[in-house]
Amino acid sequence: MRDAYHEELDLLTDKLVQMTSLVRSAISRATTALLDADLQLAESVISRDEEVNAVFADIESSIFDLMARQQPVAVDLRMVITALRMGTDLERMGDLAVHVAKVARLRHPESAIPPEIRSTILEMGQIAENIVTKAGSCVASRDVDSALELEQDDDAMDRLHRRLFRNILSKEWPHGVEPAIDITLIGRYYERYADHAVRVAADVVYLVTGSRPS
Amino acid sequence: MRDAYHEELDLLTDKLVQMTSLVRSAISRATTALLDADLQLAESVISRDEEVNAVFADIESSIFDLMARQQPVAVDLRMVITALRMGTDLERMGDLAVHVAKVARLRHPESAIPPEIRSTILEMGQIAENIVTKAGSCVASRDVDSALELEQDDDAMDRLHRRLFRNILSKEWPHGVEPAIDITLIGRYYERYADHAVRVAADVVYLVTGSRPS
Repeated sequence: MRDAYHEELDLLTDKLVQMTSLVRSAISRATTALLDADLQLAESVISRDEEVNAVFADIESSIFDLMARQQPVAVDLRMVITALRMGTDLERMGDLAVHVAKVARLRHPESAIPPEIRSTILEMGQIAENIVTKAGSCVASRDVDSALELEQDDDAMDRLHRRLFRNILSKEWPHGVEPAIDITLIGRYYERYADHAVRVAADVVYLVTGSRPS
Repeated sequence: MRDAYHEELDLLTDKLVQMTSLVRSAISRATTALLDADLQLAESVISRDEEVNAVFADIESSIFDLMARQQPVAVDLRMVITALRMGTDLERMGDLAVHVAKVARLRHPESAIPPEIRSTILEMGQIAENIVTKAGSCVASRDVDSALELEQDDDAMDRLHRRLFRNILSKEWPHGVEPAIDITLIGRYYERYADHAVRVAADVVYLVTGSRPS
């Protein structure tokens, strides 16, 4: 009985790792869709968000089941509680990738990203991918040290976010208000995406140590 | 024993209602700070967010306690699980009010809001207040019908949000890029605030019926 129970808890971890992998792929495709004005890729991000939501629904019902049938205590209880929180954050990351993809779709066949901003957006996309990949590893390994390192990737994202604003606000910005609005929102989506990944990692720290990083 | 247990569950509801009241006050003050360029009020929103976070921390530790000591089943189990989710949403609403207040602080002694946008922002603030007030009532009363009504207030928020974009994007927009960026972000903060309130109400529906509104 105890064994089946721990298998169920492990399965919860597997599903969370699967979510990190789905939302990594989503932000990767969304970034490419944005930079290449690739409508088909944008549509794939939007339609495949259902997969992320389905895994989360699955996690939620497993948790409900587990709690109703078992009485998880100590680290097992922390596992189910943090799994709920992590799942909520990961689901939101999927939504944010969809938001990015929707801007790409809205501006197609144009690109929403003017040339002088492309490298910043590319870097934001890469950091988003790195940070969620690391978050996934942390969830799988429960490695507190690597979980704490994610803060640094998030700092890098914040620096890029500020660079983006400097670009839009520079006197030389020739593109007017509409692209500035697009880029403001896109920047916000990437920044929030990274924030949620940091929260997932913080939950790994909580899971292992019983207290959250400050 | 059972009685003390149900008192604890009721206390959880009281604390959630308290959170709705704190974040209602926060968005109300943030809107006024924004429209009146009132630095002191903006600072009060920013510094008093700690109160919201403290109530949520309190809720989280009560839930952990309850789960470890009791074995909540059926509607009680749904109560503790949804309380966690509601608390997460309400905490985020507090953060969003802080974001609004920070724009007010950044632009002080100017107002971030040009005259032609003021009435839209005022209305968005009012809808945000109404929607969180209703969410609080739903949490207290567990009234499914009123919980479902919140969708309509959210539709009104979405309409205002679109009006905001029309204003910024109109050919007559004389204020340039920087105020457009501020207003893009502010609009997003109010819209997200309302979304989270709708999620709180959706959790009331789940709590009572066992399934979420579509």
